[in-house]
Amino acid sequence: MGRSGLVARREEAVLSTPAEFRRWWEERRGARRMRVTEVGLHALERWHVDPVTGNLGHTSGRFFTVEGLGVRVAGASRHAHPVINQPEIGVLGLLVRDIDGVPHCLVQAKEEPGNIDGPQLSPTVQATRSNHTRVHGGRRPPHLEHFVGPGRGEVLVDVLQSEQGGWFWRKRNRNMVVRVPGPVPVDDNFRWLPLPLLHALLRVDNLVNMDTRTVLACMPLPVGRGDRESAADDPLTRSFHPDAPARHTTADLLSWFTEAKTWCDWSARLIPLAEVPGWSITGGRLVDDRRRDFAVLGLRVEAGGREITGWDQPLLRPPGPGSAVLVIRPIEGVTHVLVQARPEYGLLDTVEMAPSHQWLPGADRSLIGDPFTVTIPGLGHGEPPGGPVRHDVVLSEEGGRFHEALTRYRIVEVGEDFPLDLPPAFRWATAAQLTGLLRHGHYLNVEARTLLACLRALVIAPPAG
Amino acid sequence: MGRSGLVARREEAVLSTPAEFRRWWEERRGARRMRVTEVGLHALERWHVDPVTGNLGHTSGRFFTVEGLGVRVAGASRHAHPVINQPEIGVLGLLVRDIDGVPHCLVQAKEEPGNIDGPQLSPTVQATRSNHTRVHGGRRPPHLEHFVGPGRGEVLVDVLQSEQGGWFWRKRNRNMVVRVPGPVPVDDNFRWLPLPLLHALLRVDNLVNMDTRTVLACMPLPVGRGDRESAADDPLTRSFHPDAPARHTTADLLSWFTEAKTWCDWSARLIPLAEVPGWSITGGRLVDDRRRDFAVLGLRVEAGGREITGWDQPLLRPPGPGSAVLVIRPIEGVTHVLVQARPEYGLLDTVEMAPSHQWLPGADRSLIGDPFTVTIPGLGHGEPPGGPVRHDVVLSEEGGRFHEALTRYRIVEVGEDFPLDLPPAFRWATAAQLTGLLRHGHYLNVEARTLLACLRALVIAPPAG
Repeated sequence: MGRSGLVARREEAVLSTPAEFRRWWEERRGARRMRVTEVGLHALERWHVDPVTGNLGHTSGRFFTVEGLGVRVAGASRHAHPVINQPEIGVLGLLVRDIDGVPHCLVQAKEEPGNIDGPQLSPTVQATRSNHTRVHGGRRPPHLEHFVGPGRGEVLVDVLQSEQGGWFWRKRNRNMVVRVPGPVPVDDNFRWLPLPLLHALLRVDNLVNMDTRTVLACMPLPVGRGDRESAADDPLTRSFHPDAPARHTTADLLSWFTEAKTWCDWSARLIPLAEVPGWSITGGRLVDDRRRDFAVLGLRVEAGGREITGWDQPLLRPPGPGSAVLVIRPIEGVTHVLVQARPEYGLLDTVEMAPSHQWLPGADRSLIGDPFTVTIPGLGHGEPPGGPVRHDVVLSEEGGRFHEALTRYRIVEVGEDFPLDLPPAFRWATAAQLTGLLRHGHYLNVEARTLLACLRALVIAPPAG
Repeated sequence: MGRSGLVARREEAVLSTPAEFRRWWEERRGARRMRVTEVGLHALERWHVDPVTGNLGHTSGRFFTVEGLGVRVAGASRHAHPVINQPEIGVLGLLVRDIDGVPHCLVQAKEEPGNIDGPQLSPTVQATRSNHTRVHGGRRPPHLEHFVGPGRGEVLVDVLQSEQGGWFWRKRNRNMVVRVPGPVPVDDNFRWLPLPLLHALLRVDNLVNMDTRTVLACMPLPVGRGDRESAADDPLTRSFHPDAPARHTTADLLSWFTEAKTWCDWSARLIPLAEVPGWSITGGRLVDDRRRDFAVLGLRVEAGGREITGWDQPLLRPPGPGSAVLVIRPIEGVTHVLVQARPEYGLLDTVEMAPSHQWLPGADRSLIGDPFTVTIPGLGHGEPPGGPVRHDVVLSEEGGRFHEALTRYRIVEVGEDFPLDLPPAFRWATAAQLTGLLRHGHYLNVEARTLLACLRALVIAPPAG
């Protein structure tokens, strides 16, 4: 193919306006090819329950297993629940490229078996290690060579970040952003979107998927600030500036966070699923006796557009939607974000910084003691304080592992009457401090990362009106 | 006590010269009060072997346990060995204070049951959480209030760092440096040493203990550079400068390190000690059938000067001394350190940066595959390349858990004939880059931290001659 062919493809592959995006998206929704049917865990092909441990796994030994997570205090077992164990590290990779001075991201329309409503916008590459090595016999995901090959582009982000500590055992994925100098050949599932437009789409329910959100949050600031330099006096814009005066130095923030890890009196470990009391496979689903927590379903997937044409797999279905609220408040002319140190049994490093309020239905957190449980009046029961709601959207968690897992994400701005001195599990930080910490793993949990991306949307793609 | 009393104590408690240090140290050695006798694991008071799991633990459920570590590849068990599991996070805290413009550190002469030759220099505080909460009925460690209390001094360092991944299960301690404005009352076991003198003592065999070394390595650079500004043109001094030109940007270094974590095809978990094949308690010791790896001994400790007057405990005894070598080389006028990405089964985050060469006797690393095993010619078998040896010392690992665990630490300088392009597990970094990463956990392993402290000694306390 000649040079003009590539240029022609580039023109097609760039969507500059919401209207262009909508047209392409309707087309993609029309091309849906995935059908999902619940067949029950015992009927899953190539999956089996280990007769000794009760663990649910793939016959290849790859992908993931459903095992037990046991929590101990002073050496005694105190709580257990099932957990998804996926030790392999996958790649969540976003290609970026400057077009007329504006960074554009190469996104993909991707169907996942757990999605509630058709395809969602995924990063350029979303590949488990089993994908790379083609354990399930499919083809190698397109564009992977830009992230793991020799001669790849300029690496802007490359960091392991955690996923849901309530459902996963120490899961991390490799969040990557790579800059390429020019066009790359793409098919109809891929399009370049301007970074501001991609952020604006974070206001649409169940559109931008979890993997895209976490990668966007990790994007370093010069790329992320985009073309809004004119608004540099706005407290929120200033919050994203590395030199903005912060209420706490980063050294103090790190010290507070280190101390919070020492508050945990429990430790968690993997145990055989058969040893998790009160859970059983009933009616083809792994459920707890009181049907209060999540269930693990056995699904059959038929698809035309993915690596292979069909497969069976378990998916975790939560009992209802979760909630995550970020409280923001200007402090001396700089917007600060209220984070909390939040332990989750399945996190690799026990505690990460979470949104101001985070609630997951069904989860037993009874062993999480003081000072973590000392909350802020008005924030303890899921309803945000009464300031203006700057962002309010329902977004889906990872559709490859979770079935219709929805979280309502809100950003609420409070005024100067909101207290600055808060219980020990809470801290104010600037957006730049949090973005700086995202160069490293183990700091912000996946819900906080989603909300940090939504916060940036307020700066680089402010809502109309 | 009046103000003059405090001043008098301060004068006594400051040791400014090697001769003053030696005098105090001989006195401390004369005051040794710890006696250690091997009684065998089954005879240990308040420790027992769990009849179901075979794990060895304290009757309180506190301190630590000896359990099994199992390594799996693709879901199948492939290797196992015993491991020390200590989920509690302790404090390793060093107080610093400026006297006549020179930072001084408050160190302690501390006996530990595993020490090879009497007391060693420990940080101001070395306290497990069981110490704080006084599970063993002793008194609270002196000076702890400077690290965990309200109204503590200025926190310079507060970070969780790993310990030996070959022997511990995901052990971390809280490395802290706190600056106080003036004297604090101390007893005969404590003395203030100038930071350069403390670094010079890193050249004495088995004197500066592991906990002091790891805290020193984490100390931020302005404090650590001390009074040697005149030598700023020296390539090694420049290496500690944050703006020194580095062969790889920190972003590239982080990307390389993230990628190295994805090379691991195995995963590790705790298993019951009874399920570790080839190991048994024989003759009162936990040993492997071929007596090639470490042994766990059961010891009785009698002591007058510690929290309580006696206790029993297991200690891990390695089969022989280990070796850790740091290769350094000037690159364009800045000394660079050669680190390797090294997986250890017991590390929380799988891989950390290790010295250029690290060897632990007895350890089975057969599941550590390529590219980790592709070593550098001349570095593969423990003998460093032939450049000048800048540092050569035998130091002890943690005497509270290990019995006579010695490591020979060397820093070897190579010239411009040493290759710059190396196998994928290796990278050149400046001392400032590595010190910057030590603001965070999970980056440098404990052996690399010891060698980074020794490297700083070459700058702030150059050897005579």
